[in-house]
Amino acid sequence: MGRPRTPLLDRERITTTALRLIDETGDFSVPQIARRLGAQTGSVYHHVDGRDGIVELLRERVCAAIDPGTLELTPWDTAVEAWARSYRAAFAAHPRTIPLLMTSPVRAPRVLEQYERAVSLLLAAGFDRAEVMPLIIALENLVLGSALDLAAPETMWELTDRASTPRLADALAAVGEGRADRAFEVGLAAFMNHARALLRPPDGAC
Amino acid sequence: MGRPRTPLLDRERITTTALRLIDETGDFSVPQIARRLGAQTGSVYHHVDGRDGIVELLRERVCAAIDPGTLELTPWDTAVEAWARSYRAAFAAHPRTIPLLMTSPVRAPRVLEQYERAVSLLLAAGFDRAEVMPLIIALENLVLGSALDLAAPETMWELTDRASTPRLADALAAVGEGRADRAFEVGLAAFMNHARALLRPPDGAC
Repeated sequence: MGRPRTPLLDRERITTTALRLIDETGDFSVPQIARRLGAQTGSVYHHVDGRDGIVELLRERVCAAIDPGTLELTPWDTAVEAWARSYRAAFAAHPRTIPLLMTSPVRAPRVLEQYERAVSLLLAAGFDRAEVMPLIIALENLVLGSALDLAAPETMWELTDRASTPRLADALAAVGEGRADRAFEVGLAAFMNHARALLRPPDGAC
Repeated sequence: MGRPRTPLLDRERITTTALRLIDETGDFSVPQIARRLGAQTGSVYHHVDGRDGIVELLRERVCAAIDPGTLELTPWDTAVEAWARSYRAAFAAHPRTIPLLMTSPVRAPRVLEQYERAVSLLLAAGFDRAEVMPLIIALENLVLGSALDLAAPETMWELTDRASTPRLADALAAVGEGRADRAFEVGLAAFMNHARALLRPPDGAC
């Protein structure tokens, strides 16, 4: 009738602890994870493939919040736009993971599968195979830049001397609330229009 | 005839030390700066307006590498495009400052002046005052996302099992070298085309 046994260490708990450390401090180390879990550093290494392995577990965890159904929508541009919104929301929940995940090579199988589906979608839409990755990366740069921006204060420009920056003051006043969302919409519309135009034959070509 | 006296602490040296700490570790603290300069933490605070003051000194330092002449070019779209390229290069030299600077309010006078010039350029080009900041922020999200991407490894997708992601493998092979630059060009072209289209009257309106 004792308490159910909870394993002290498993990959789930290691990932959760690493994510909390990044959310709080912007980074993590294996000894810090061990300390939080009341375990030896060496024991943590028994469960994961080194620090890089933990980074990939983090990537799977954060990307698991991207709705996989978005990439099944039709037509292709509806799918890409919905995927971009879901992708931004997933990373906006953990903005401090962005620099780490953007600068470590992607190895997590489930995340690679998501790229496979995105590539397949764009190929089926008619994009050239050499165009597909630059398009996906450009969209990710916009999405992840915008996710970081969502973690910024709503009042991002603090004008102490309005007289020296009158047009900036006026432009900021004209935007009002929700500047991060407005900016993301501008960037996403620009990307989608550009992608759609790439698929259209040049004027007069047919 | 002694050596010229170098002040142990000044804002320049504090900024340089903070920047080195971020380049190396992704963050900085005032006690760390003091330790590196062989000074007391309290002495550092005599020279700067707290940690936030150092963040603004860092912002001025990194942004000083953006060529101010770009915003003077004509026509406006040549100026914006050149500014975006110079902006990306400045932050690509210190990618680990990006999350910090993107999530702290902008107070540095010289940086606010740069925004004032960018806003003035877009107003003079004919954009509506409410459109200007969303456009600038969208461009920054793309520029800073792309600057972070430039700090990523050239081989960003490590396919251990090519059979499970054949189209991704093929799309990556088709891109070849310089994927980060190719993606930035796609994103920048998308943004510029969108911005130019916003200034054109709708078809048949005249």
